[in-house]
Amino acid sequence: MDYASSTPVLKEVREVMDKYYTKDFYNPGAIYQEALVVKANISEARKKVARILGVSNSGIVFTSSGTESNNLAILGAFEKSLETFQKPHILVSSIEHPAVLKACEEVVRRGGEMSLVEVDEEGVVSLESLKKNLKKNTFLVSIGLANSEIGTVEPVSKAGRIIKEFRKENNSKYPLLHTDASQAPSYLPVGVEQLQVDLLTIDASKIYGPKGSALLAIRSGVEILPVTVGGSQERGLRAGTENPSAIVGLAKALEIAERDREGELERLEALREEFIKLVEEKIPEAVINGSRESHLPNIVSISIPNTLSEFILLKLDKEGVMVSVGTTCSLDELVSGSPVIEALGKGYLKESTLRFSFGREINLNEVKQVVEKLYRVTRI
Amino acid sequence: MDYASSTPVLKEVREVMDKYYTKDFYNPGAIYQEALVVKANISEARKKVARILGVSNSGIVFTSSGTESNNLAILGAFEKSLETFQKPHILVSSIEHPAVLKACEEVVRRGGEMSLVEVDEEGVVSLESLKKNLKKNTFLVSIGLANSEIGTVEPVSKAGRIIKEFRKENNSKYPLLHTDASQAPSYLPVGVEQLQVDLLTIDASKIYGPKGSALLAIRSGVEILPVTVGGSQERGLRAGTENPSAIVGLAKALEIAERDREGELERLEALREEFIKLVEEKIPEAVINGSRESHLPNIVSISIPNTLSEFILLKLDKEGVMVSVGTTCSLDELVSGSPVIEALGKGYLKESTLRFSFGREINLNEVKQVVEKLYRVTRI
Repeated sequence: MDYASSTPVLKEVREVMDKYYTKDFYNPGAIYQEALVVKANISEARKKVARILGVSNSGIVFTSSGTESNNLAILGAFEKSLETFQKPHILVSSIEHPAVLKACEEVVRRGGEMSLVEVDEEGVVSLESLKKNLKKNTFLVSIGLANSEIGTVEPVSKAGRIIKEFRKENNSKYPLLHTDASQAPSYLPVGVEQLQVDLLTIDASKIYGPKGSALLAIRSGVEILPVTVGGSQERGLRAGTENPSAIVGLAKALEIAERDREGELERLEALREEFIKLVEEKIPEAVINGSRESHLPNIVSISIPNTLSEFILLKLDKEGVMVSVGTTCSLDELVSGSPVIEALGKGYLKESTLRFSFGREINLNEVKQVVEKLYRVTRI
Repeated sequence: MDYASSTPVLKEVREVMDKYYTKDFYNPGAIYQEALVVKANISEARKKVARILGVSNSGIVFTSSGTESNNLAILGAFEKSLETFQKPHILVSSIEHPAVLKACEEVVRRGGEMSLVEVDEEGVVSLESLKKNLKKNTFLVSIGLANSEIGTVEPVSKAGRIIKEFRKENNSKYPLLHTDASQAPSYLPVGVEQLQVDLLTIDASKIYGPKGSALLAIRSGVEILPVTVGGSQERGLRAGTENPSAIVGLAKALEIAERDREGELERLEALREEFIKLVEEKIPEAVINGSRESHLPNIVSISIPNTLSEFILLKLDKEGVMVSVGTTCSLDELVSGSPVIEALGKGYLKESTLRFSFGREINLNEVKQVVEKLYRVTRI
C-alpha cells in the first residue's frame, strides 16, 4: 500500500537493463564499435521517450532522480533567467514535493524571490491565485501534475494557457511552466503539448522502472543552464558518463506505463472507490483528503482525527500493511506532520494522516483486508 | 584496452545488487520493517566505505557519478566559502578531468576566480607552483590522484601537507584539498588521512562496480553546501531517493579493489613494462607520455608523431582492439586533440595520442598481440 513511494522493477524492464552490466559495459562516449552499439541503444531510448512526451530527441535530459530533474528545471531555468532578470521570481504551489520547494528556497538563497500559489481544501491549485501572482520577472511556475501525498490532479494545462497568454501580453519568453509528473505516467497522459508545459519531470522509480533513473523533458526552444557540469553528455545539460541500463530501463517503463494506462486506471479507480466506501462505513470519523473529482486512481490520503499517524503506521506494519505518512522524503515530516495537509487548511490533522497507495499487485481482496486491519488498529 | 573508460560489473558485485530491483524494492526513507532492512543495508555499505576511506559514516555522500561528486566537492565548497570570502579562489592542476575543470569554470561564472597549478612534462604537479599560487582567498585546491589519460600519480599527500601548513600560518580552515581518485582505488590506497585530503571522489564505474554510482568522502569537520536539494537524504547534502543497488554495489566494488589491490598492481605493472618495452622495440618513434616513476600500472599513453589518433583508433577497432584518445568524456577532444598532452608541453602530439588501459581480463598474450597490431596499423 505504498506504491507511490517506490515500485518494483518489472521483469520486462529488467530484461532490457541486464546486458549493460557485464556484457555491453562500454562507455557510450567511446568511439569503437562496441561502444557505438551502446550509444545507439541510448539514442533509441531517447527517441522512444521523446515520442511519448512529444518533444524532440534533443529535448530529453536523462538524470539520476526526480529530485535531480526538478533541481535542473528550477535552478537551470533560474541561472539562465539571470540573463534577463535581475531578481528572477518563481511561483510554486504550496503543496509541492520537497525537491521542488527546496529548489525554490535555493533560488531565494541565490538572490531570486519566490511566492506560493494557493490551493483549495482539496489541494487544487487556484488559477485565480496563479494569475494574481504572475509578475513581469516571473521566470518559472512549477505545479506538480499529481500530488504525491493526496493524489489530487492539478489543472496544469489550464495554468499553461494562462501563462502563454501572459507571455504574449508581455512579449516575453518568460515565465516557463514546469510540472513534476513523477506520480502520473501510469495513469495520465504526460505529453508536453497536451499539458501545455515547457519542462516536465519523469521518475523511473515511480513507474516500475529502476531507481537512480529519471529525465527532464524540455520543450523545443526553451533554454536552461546545466546544474552538473563536465563532459559534453546530454548536450552539455547534464555531465557524467551515461548509465545505459538506467536509461533503457526508464524508456521501457514509460512505454509500458503508456501501454497499460487505460486498464490500470480503470482497475485501480474501482479499487479506490471500494476502499473509500469501506473506510467511510467502518471508520466514519475518517477524513478523505484530496479531490473527489480530479485525482490519481492509486492514492488515498486518510486522516483519522485524534490519532498519531506514526503510531497507526507501525501497528499496520505489524499487520503486514505498508503505508506512509507523507512523501517518504523527509524525516522532518515524521516529527512535525505533513505540510501538505496543513496547506489544505487542515493543520489539526497534519499528524493524523496516512497515505495508502495502490499498484499493480493490489487486488480487491487485499483492499478489503487493509480496511479491516485499519479498523482494528484504530479501535485499540 | 580501455578499462580506464569503463569496467564491467564483477559477478560478486552484481550478486549484492540484484535483490533491490524486484524483491527489496522499498524506498529506504519509509519506516515499515521491509524498508528499514533496505535502510540498514545502506548503512552497512556506508560503514564499509567509510572504514576503507578513513572518514566517519556521516562523511560519505553517495552520488550518481564521479562527475557529480566532483561538482559537489567544488561547487558545494564554493557556495559554503562565500560565507568567508567575497571572491573565493580555486586552484586546480592544468590536467584535470573536464568534470573538475568545468566545475572550476562554473565557480568563475558564479563570481569566484581560478588559477592553474603547473605540471611538468611528465604531468607531475609542481609543488612549487602550488605554493606560489595559494592565496588568502583560496577555498579549494583540486588535484586528481591519478590522471585518467596518462596515468601519472600525483604527490597529493605532499600537497596536503603544504596546504595544512598554509592553513596554520593563516589561521584559516581554508583552503581545502580535494582529489578525484576515480582511477586509483584498484591500485593505490585511497584513505583520506594517508592522502592528507579533505574531499575525495570515488567512482564505482571505474572499479568494476555499477555505472550511475559514486561517492564523495568528506573529512570530519569540513563543511560544504549541497548541489542537489530536496529531501533529507545523505544528511541533506544530496537529495533524492537513495539507490540501494548502486550503493551496495559501490561498497562491494571498493571492498574488492582493496582486497585484490596488491596482486593486480604487481600483475599489471609487469604487463605495462612489457607493453612499453615491446612498443619501444617495434615502434621506436613512439613517445610514452606520463611519469616513468609515479604512475598507475594500467594506463599507457602513447603518442605516435605524424599520425592522427582517431585514424589509428578506428583501424585498431577493426582489429578488435578498443582504445581511446582521451578521457572519453568530451567530443571536443576528438576535434581538437587532448588538452592534457598539450599541458605537458607536447602540443604537437595532442592529435597523435592514444590511451591504452589494462584491466582484470588482460593478459600477457593479449598485450603482445596489441603491440603487434599497433605496429601493423601504424605501418600502413
